[in-house]
Amino acid sequence: MSTKEDIEEGAEFIPKFDDNGLIPVIAQDSQTGQILMVAYMNRQALDLTIQTGYATYFSRSRQKLWKKGEQSGHVQKIEQILVDCDQDCLILQVIVDAGQCHVGYRSCFYRALKKKKDKKLEFISDKVFNPQKTYRK
Amino acid sequence: MSTKEDIEEGAEFIPKFDDNGLIPVIAQDSQTGQILMVAYMNRQALDLTIQTGYATYFSRSRQKLWKKGEQSGHVQKIEQILVDCDQDCLILQVIVDAGQCHVGYRSCFYRALKKKKDKKLEFISDKVFNPQKTYRK
Repeated sequence: MSTKEDIEEGAEFIPKFDDNGLIPVIAQDSQTGQILMVAYMNRQALDLTIQTGYATYFSRSRQKLWKKGEQSGHVQKIEQILVDCDQDCLILQVIVDAGQCHVGYRSCFYRALKKKKDKKLEFISDKVFNPQKTYRK
Repeated sequence: MSTKEDIEEGAEFIPKFDDNGLIPVIAQDSQTGQILMVAYMNRQALDLTIQTGYATYFSRSRQKLWKKGEQSGHVQKIEQILVDCDQDCLILQVIVDAGQCHVGYRSCFYRALKKKKDKKLEFISDKVFNPQKTYRK
């Protein structure tokens, strides 16, 4: 059993998976710092990501491994993997050459909450690809 | 009931809380793009964050609202709140003036996986405050 000190101050990678066997993962553009998406990995997806150097996630909706870009071709090449203090969240710093969001945007975070307190969103990005064409392939 | 199109393409803010009533939230330095931490909010924490302009989270370990900085003084002033395509994850773009991690680092992500496949971490940051002093106050 790892101690709090092992986890927080140690040099051993002991990622903590939740009750569903998953860990949340943030993909961040290693060039610009832009946050591209958040997804989940199980142990196998993490091992594949480390081994291959390209991001593989676990799809919660489809309950299966999902190599990012398997349909769209929009892969994520790993530059660096960071882990947080309690080792229950990861950042993939990645190189990408295309939009990463299935809706057609570079980042999944293409809307911001308007400053007024009316719970409305404003679009802060333009689409960079046409998902209907990309996913028809 | 909101449709997939409402959620993904709409201008209505309809954040999706999980079975525990929580949504994951990434705090990102609005000046540098550095990812500082990941935490969770329930509906009340999110409403308080929007109303006050400072981050309030829900602590899963303590099962209570947690105004970031209530002990350390290291608050997060909100610049912008982003939501992702399926509205089940948020980014807070924040202004901070001190380390954000309880271990003493600016970011919780102070370790990276070493490139060799030995599951060892390397420290990529130095501590910016002494948590023993900060949390004794």
